[in-house]
Parts: sequence; C-alpha cells; structure tokens
Amino acid sequence: MRALTVDPRQAGSLRVAEVPDPEPAPGELLVDGLALGVCGTDREIARAEYGWSPPGRPWLVLGHESLGRVRQASPGSGFTPGDLVVGVVRRPDPVPCGACARGEFDMCRNGQYTERGIKEIDGYGSQVWCVEPDYAVTLDPRLERVGMLMEPTTVVAKAWDQVRRVGERAWFEPRRVLVTGAGPIGLLAALLGAQRGLDVHVLDRVTDGPKPRLVRDLGATYHSDPIDTVASRLQPDVVIEATGVGSVVFGAIEHTAPYGIVCLTGVSPSGRALPIDAGALNRSLVLENDVIIGSVNANLDHYRQAAEALARADLDWLDRVITRRVPLTRFAEAFAAEPDDVKVVITLDEA
Amino acid sequence: MRALTVDPRQAGSLRVAEVPDPEPAPGELLVDGLALGVCGTDREIARAEYGWSPPGRPWLVLGHESLGRVRQASPGSGFTPGDLVVGVVRRPDPVPCGACARGEFDMCRNGQYTERGIKEIDGYGSQVWCVEPDYAVTLDPRLERVGMLMEPTTVVAKAWDQVRRVGERAWFEPRRVLVTGAGPIGLLAALLGAQRGLDVHVLDRVTDGPKPRLVRDLGATYHSDPIDTVASRLQPDVVIEATGVGSVVFGAIEHTAPYGIVCLTGVSPSGRALPIDAGALNRSLVLENDVIIGSVNANLDHYRQAAEALARADLDWLDRVITRRVPLTRFAEAFAAEPDDVKVVITLDEA
Repeated sequence: MRALTVDPRQAGSLRVAEVPDPEPAPGELLVDGLALGVCGTDREIARAEYGWSPPGRPWLVLGHESLGRVRQASPGSGFTPGDLVVGVVRRPDPVPCGACARGEFDMCRNGQYTERGIKEIDGYGSQVWCVEPDYAVTLDPRLERVGMLMEPTTVVAKAWDQVRRVGERAWFEPRRVLVTGAGPIGLLAALLGAQRGLDVHVLDRVTDGPKPRLVRDLGATYHSDPIDTVASRLQPDVVIEATGVGSVVFGAIEHTAPYGIVCLTGVSPSGRALPIDAGALNRSLVLENDVIIGSVNANLDHYRQAAEALARADLDWLDRVITRRVPLTRFAEAFAAEPDDVKVVITLDEA
Repeated sequence: MRALTVDPRQAGSLRVAEVPDPEPAPGELLVDGLALGVCGTDREIARAEYGWSPPGRPWLVLGHESLGRVRQASPGSGFTPGDLVVGVVRRPDPVPCGACARGEFDMCRNGQYTERGIKEIDGYGSQVWCVEPDYAVTLDPRLERVGMLMEPTTVVAKAWDQVRRVGERAWFEPRRVLVTGAGPIGLLAALLGAQRGLDVHVLDRVTDGPKPRLVRDLGATYHSDPIDTVASRLQPDVVIEATGVGSVVFGAIEHTAPYGIVCLTGVSPSGRALPIDAGALNRSLVLENDVIIGSVNANLDHYRQAAEALARADLDWLDRVITRRVPLTRFAEAFAAEPDDVKVVITLDEA
C-alpha cells in the first residue's frame, strides 16, 4: 500500500512510499483510510524539526488527524465493517505514570508516551491502517467528508474541559470568550464556545478570505484589530489562545476580566525575546485571581466530547473549514501554504 | 482612643491620632486591640501609593493583620469576652456579584468590595475596634503572641486551596514544592507545605539572618542560588511565588515539572520591561499542561483553614517569624525596613 512517510529530522525526506500492508494484531480493527488532516505539527516534522521514527527503522508513517472506514472488526469489538472511525493519537507507556494509569495520558508526567504519526509509532497517513478498538472512536456517518476535523476538535474539547474544571474552583458563569487565531483550532474553539451559548469573539490578522465569514456564520464576532485594542475593549472572561504568537499570548493575558482564564493551545518557535512588563503582568494576575492554563493533546473523554460536538455542528460550516483537498500522490501541495488556507486535507481513497 | 491613621495618597500622613472610640453596632463585638502586623500593602499605603479613606473623610485607620481580645459580645454571637479574635479584611458589596453572593468575596468580579484598613473602611490599627461576628474568627488561646500572623496565613491557605482545586482537575499527587521568597508569606507557605508532608524548598536572596534557620526548622531546604539554577535542578510540581519580582516569577514558570502549577501571591511595582522569550514560555506551558494561578485575599473558609494551621504549628517557630515588636507610639520604626526583618508587628496593648 501507499503511505505518506518521513525520516524524522531528515530534511526533504517526506514522500509517498510503497510499504507493507499493516497486519492487524488480534482484536485490532483494519481500516481503509479516507483522509488525513495536515496541521502545524505535521509541517514541523516535514521540515525535519520534530518527530521520532519507530525503534529500528528510519521512517515513520506521518499523520495523526485520521479518518477511515472499518474494513474488518472482531465480534465484540464494538465496531462493524463500514463504521466511520477515527484513531486516537497518544498511547501511554506500558509502565504508566499516575495520570496515564487513570486514562489521562494527555496529562502524562514522565513523557514516556508514544504518538501515532509523531513519536515512535506509525501514523494514519496510509491507504490502510490498524487501530486497537480501545483507541478508536466511531463518528456520525454524516461526517464522512469532514470527520478528519475530529482530532483538532478533541484538542479544543480538552481546552474547554480545562477551562470549565479550573473555572469551577469558585463561582463561574462566563459570558464572553475571545478566541485568538482563526485557524482550524481557533474556529473549532469558537464552534464549541457558540455551542455553549457564549458571546464568542474571534481575532485574526486577515480581513478577507474565508475566516471572517466562518466566524460570523457561528453567530460570533470577527475582529482584526491589534490584540490590545480588541481584548481591552472586550475584557473577556475566557480566552482560548490558538496562535502561539508571544505578543498575542501576553496581550490576551493582560486584558481579561477579573477571574479571567486564558487557555493556551498554540505552539510557536522560541528564540525571540519580547519586552514584557513582568511586574505589571504579575500584579494583574494576582489582584484579579486570573489563571493561565497550558493544554495539549486529548484523552478518550475528549474524543467522545468532540464526536458529540461535531455531530451537533452544521455540516456545511465544517465542510467550509476544509479549504483544500489534495490526493495522496500530490501530498507536496498540501504542505505548501496558500493564502486562504484554513484546513488542508489529504485524501487517501482516490489515489 | 489612639489609632494608626493615614490620609491615603497623601505623602507623610501616617500618624498616631486620638480618634473617637468605636461604637459597636447591634450584634457587633467590641475588641481590645493586641497587635497589628505590618505588610507590603501597609507600606504602599503609607507611601501614598494605594488605599481609599471612608466616604466623607480624608483619613483611614490603617491595618488589616489584626489580633485582639473580645471585651464585649452579645449572647448568641458565638463569642465570649476574653476570646482571642482576628477580624476578616474584605467585605462584599451590599449588592453582591455572583462570587460574593456565595461567600467567595476573595473572588469578587465587580471590584465593589471594601477592605478594612485598605479600602473605604477603617482597619484594625487601634486600641479598640469593632467587628461583625460573621467576620471574626477565634484563635487558639496559645496564639496570643503570634495570632497577628493569621491574616498572612489566610492568604497562604487560599493559595494552597487554589493549587489543590486546580491540581485536582486530573491526577494530582504533588511531591516537591518550591517557595520563592522567605518573607512572612513565603515562610507561612512553606509551613503549610510541610504540614502537607511535601518536600519543601525555599529560595531567597539572603544567606544569613533568621530566614535560613526558620526554613530548616520546618524540615525544608533553603536555597540562595539564582532562580534558574535552583528551579531547573528541582523541577518542582508546585511553586508558591511570594516575591512578585518579574525575573523570579518567569524563572519559576519556566522550570516546573510537567503539569506544574505556579501560584502567584506577590505583588511588585510595574514599569520595568524584562526581555522574555514568549514563544519558549508559551510552548513549555502548552506542552506540559502547566498552569499559572494568581491568588489574592481570602474568604472565611481560608480563615478557618489558617486558624487550624496555626494551631498545629510550633509556637516558638511562629514567634521567631516575628522579628520585631514596636509599640504604637513608635509606629515609624515599624515602617522603616531593617536588614533582618521578617514580620514586624505593632503592639497595641502597651501604649
């Protein structure tokens, strides 16, 4: 079968390769790949900046934003051939830390987890893949064209779950949320905010292209002014930060309402120093009981929450978040940024 | 009676003044003041940088770290003459916000609270004071010499309570805590950490004076190396930050263990920019699921927790935290810093 492979930390090694068909271990599902979402982590791995191949070989099947259709399932697995399915990214170490032992592998303490398509186990960027039933989630059949948005939705479901758990340490009835960044994570964060009945605002740099309309179609408000202007006017109760850009991160932190919560979900390169008035920032965090949360990855609870959120969402809106679909053979186009990109997807069933 | 008064925002106005004896409102306790702790907020008010007088007059009785003995109490108040008592600092607005309506006035959202000795209501720096029984807490009679440490202990009890509530959003069994700053807040934070059976480390600049021994006498470890050296070696699960110094705040945030929690309790002046690698900081917060919590003030639950913590503590150790005791008439000495100061106290019963 054909797969999108990469030799991690080896520049220019991203390619479509003929690799052996995977053999399902006892109980595992055999799945026909339908599509693969491409995200910033994939681009980092493709640029040789991140990633680990499985022990004993130089190459890794890339891809963690999966979507497939079950071809073969054991009786009692809970899955049936034909099911639309998504595979979970992270696996705990066989000797789990305290968090992993509770199924909270997204909160792993010792870093000994593996991740499909990222860290030591093959990803989902192949025409056929296998997955353990315990790490697979079925999707509403109507999500056939958009279900590869599941994995980024789990990241956002976890972020909202973190906001709620931290917010509920005292009285918590948030009204206004600011989402910074209108990429896939930001848009999906806005979707989940709108589903919670909040007054949702989304900030991004662009003034045209698909983003402003996608935001407005959620009943949310789109902003493209500088972060300090927007955040100081809105004084949001909650910020979901999805740019990773230092000036945006600190601008958001500075201007929340009292008891404000900023949930950071974006990562960006390090190495550039910003002048920060650390005393003022610290003072405002303390005197307002503000909280900053870092949030990464997702566990099975978040996969279930994300599946529900997607099933409730408008299909046409989800479809418009996917701005380009590229067949596997032309994978390079998916990794070359275009101005109006939101989510770019590689299709696996038409190669 | 004599009281320590100040005209807020009026430089050089701190003085001992003869003011009318307070008249207890129906149900209120009449209390003989024993002592008053002096903290950074008092010094800010004395320097005319902070504070609000009651409506209609320019002066405010200073002092919020109270200790007194009940002289007069109504039957059914729950108090008896002779009780050792501490008054709560904050009062909610008569039209409470959602948090204040639940008794969480330490988490007030609209800023319409008042604070004894700080914001619009007289403090406890007088020979006699009154307090509502609902805002008074009795102390173990053994705490007669040290009970003015109660208010800073409530601040620390709240910080620990916040750490626990935020930590318990997933699996949470912290082992190692770093306390930055060995002033009264830092030392009391270390005391409560030791009472929780944690591996406690305290960082301060000084290498001599009373602080290193006070730390070691808790069974904790004292450090005076730079924050980056200490924190990167310790990788603490929890940091209680009690300096408010920008470089210490950011150094602590950078070096926690995965799922690290930094609770900020210190405030310091703003206006000085530090070069911060915001991308690296953001990345480490996200990828490690770290949290930063700002925490200020305390509610009645924290007063009860603090009273228990003080009752369990070693009396001699608490006494050594108080490094100077100055009578009210010589208040100016209490506001002049001396090298080995930890907590300076003004006595009210010997003037």
